[in-house]
Amino acid sequence: MDAPHVFTLEADMLEIGARARAAAAVLRDLSPAQRTAALKAMAQALRSSAAAILAANAEDLARAQRQGLSPALVDRLKLDATRIEGVARAVDEVAAIADPVGAVMAEWTRPNGLKFQRVRTPLGVIGIIFESRPNVAADAGALALRAGNAVILRGGSDSAASVAAIGDALRQGLSQTSVPEDVIQIVPTTDRAAVGMMLKGLDGAIDVIVPRGGKALVARVQDEARVPVFAHLEGLCHTYVHEAADPKKAIEITLNAKMRRVSVCGATETLLIDRAVAARLLPPIAEALTAKGCELRGDTEARGVVTMNEAAEEDWRAEYLAPILAVRVVENVDAAIAHIARYGSQHTDAIITEDKAAAEKFLREVDSAIVLWNASTQFADGGEFGFGGEIGIATGRMHARGPVGAEQLTTFKYVVRGDGQIRP
Amino acid sequence: MDAPHVFTLEADMLEIGARARAAAAVLRDLSPAQRTAALKAMAQALRSSAAAILAANAEDLARAQRQGLSPALVDRLKLDATRIEGVARAVDEVAAIADPVGAVMAEWTRPNGLKFQRVRTPLGVIGIIFESRPNVAADAGALALRAGNAVILRGGSDSAASVAAIGDALRQGLSQTSVPEDVIQIVPTTDRAAVGMMLKGLDGAIDVIVPRGGKALVARVQDEARVPVFAHLEGLCHTYVHEAADPKKAIEITLNAKMRRVSVCGATETLLIDRAVAARLLPPIAEALTAKGCELRGDTEARGVVTMNEAAEEDWRAEYLAPILAVRVVENVDAAIAHIARYGSQHTDAIITEDKAAAEKFLREVDSAIVLWNASTQFADGGEFGFGGEIGIATGRMHARGPVGAEQLTTFKYVVRGDGQIRP
Repeated sequence: MDAPHVFTLEADMLEIGARARAAAAVLRDLSPAQRTAALKAMAQALRSSAAAILAANAEDLARAQRQGLSPALVDRLKLDATRIEGVARAVDEVAAIADPVGAVMAEWTRPNGLKFQRVRTPLGVIGIIFESRPNVAADAGALALRAGNAVILRGGSDSAASVAAIGDALRQGLSQTSVPEDVIQIVPTTDRAAVGMMLKGLDGAIDVIVPRGGKALVARVQDEARVPVFAHLEGLCHTYVHEAADPKKAIEITLNAKMRRVSVCGATETLLIDRAVAARLLPPIAEALTAKGCELRGDTEARGVVTMNEAAEEDWRAEYLAPILAVRVVENVDAAIAHIARYGSQHTDAIITEDKAAAEKFLREVDSAIVLWNASTQFADGGEFGFGGEIGIATGRMHARGPVGAEQLTTFKYVVRGDGQIRP
Repeated sequence: MDAPHVFTLEADMLEIGARARAAAAVLRDLSPAQRTAALKAMAQALRSSAAAILAANAEDLARAQRQGLSPALVDRLKLDATRIEGVARAVDEVAAIADPVGAVMAEWTRPNGLKFQRVRTPLGVIGIIFESRPNVAADAGALALRAGNAVILRGGSDSAASVAAIGDALRQGLSQTSVPEDVIQIVPTTDRAAVGMMLKGLDGAIDVIVPRGGKALVARVQDEARVPVFAHLEGLCHTYVHEAADPKKAIEITLNAKMRRVSVCGATETLLIDRAVAARLLPPIAEALTAKGCELRGDTEARGVVTMNEAAEEDWRAEYLAPILAVRVVENVDAAIAHIARYGSQHTDAIITEDKAAAEKFLREVDSAIVLWNASTQFADGGEFGFGGEIGIATGRMHARGPVGAEQLTTFKYVVRGDGQIRP
């Protein structure tokens, strides 16, 4: 493209940023009830725009088929009446979440009489960069709005028409309410330079970037972003069967943690099992997994108990997202914690035991976003946490960690009330 | 320098990172009482090492004088017995702060019986890059340790000997305790490349960077950092005298907010005053300020009431850090809020009024880290907040905002306790 076009892109993107900032300033000061009404209007508009959204989706699907996209990608892209109703219902569910804005997180009074409050406020403007599933536009937009934020959404080129149609519906819903339409804006170009501009913050207009997609997208975002990022890197989750594990729980939880859905970030990738119970518990656990089609890759000791493939060093570092499980026999809870510290991704790790002291040690010393006792790692999900929705799971340590719900999309300010105090 | 030296610097810095990470893992699992004992030992070691610290400081001062540093910089550098006792006492005060680690921030139970807790945990390893004042090594190191973190400290070349001596004292104090000495490490070189390496995170060893210094330092850190930064940019603070202000409070608070100390980030830089009271209140406020040596720069209306210099557009954007005050007459609280939104730095802003509705509107709608009603902007300080210490004031919106105390130097994890739950 030639220079005038580049200039237009840049000017257009900065205009989007400025509109988002202005809309966020209005949204911030509205009441929770006004935000709830806007969310309900958005859900209704998705329903009443179903025909237009499906027509746009058909365009995307036709192009995808011409371009020979894989059936899995085409399925992610595809919308139908049921899926649109599902998207609308998800927005209604977000409308039912308690509005986090204005909540008093802490309050105290100083000896000089100054009264302090720490109060939740919206983060501001959130840039969301996502790949194939077009419903992210509605899910993420709704959750951001619940917390008083404006969003700038940039979908993948595969879903461009569907995302544009969903965006039109959401904005049409907002046009009936006191919330400015510009709290939700869709970047209207598939030019990759637009993503680069978002990652630089659009001249201070974007407060945080949330990438939703595969590792390549997240890596690009983390590498190029000059504004903070809530990134999800890797879910290398462990289930550890302690010597005092209840056998039934060990079998059921391990099977669920690995096989309920193998492609989610909370799926267990490595099973650690205490030497003292390996001979007794590994066979039934392995049998349950194998019966469901799971491949096992074990260390020497595990293979001495159950016939399975050999695990190499890289298996301890593998986020398979597939029906494969690495298996390692460990000496005790300390060894399990050490393995997780060395190889884990600080996402989600579980211990199965009836020994409270061992469990509490594991819960305290494993430095992961989510640590569980006698429960499946697949509970790593904002809905399961009761957040009513999530914009992703953050694997970083700053601001948000674990499922990012409405509360994590806020910041805070200090409100100080005095009666004439001056500082000595 | 030639290639072998560069390689040594890199290897040495990575070794510092690895040691910090290992020490942080030990520190994290110690008890609050063990951290308190370590802090008290650090304070005692500062006292018993006073002679060595003063000798090192004399080296720095001699070099500073040879190099012709300004008297102000030399004064910032200078330590004496009183100042060392002050540094030790500050560490003792940090020892008295409640340990934030392990605090349960929220807990709830889901319908399936899973019990959730959100629990405070240390951030990990904090890189602190600071300029002339050598006491920052002790202040910042102590506060980070209170929150269970290891620190890597990099002072300016002016204070290299003093900082090294303070670091030796702190580590010697720790050597008497269960806390590993490596929770406090001083970068032993003044090579600027070491800072560059810290800003890239030392291969994942540093979780957050805190710059403490002037704008040039903070700008370099923000520009180059590939890890999160708690940065303090600018304190362009406003005091707004509303038409319902109590005259005595308006005069006293404005005088204190501007002139108590003009060089602190919470000093007021712009006075906004309602048109309705300008003729009545601006003269006594101006008189009080002028009597203390403050220069006033006003808009046309202000100059119609009191003789003063003329304010230009850039005066509304000036963080003077000097006895100069920009003065603007505004129509009402909405105009004051709009001025602050346009020109402010989202740091600290105050309203002086006896009208509760106007005050609450200002407190709600001004989107700054700290908003005050009838109190001086100079209360923007972690000590005045009751935090028992601060590592700086963050002007960003992510994770920490406002004074960064021990609590803001933590992150959290979710602890989930079940009795065999699997996800449907």
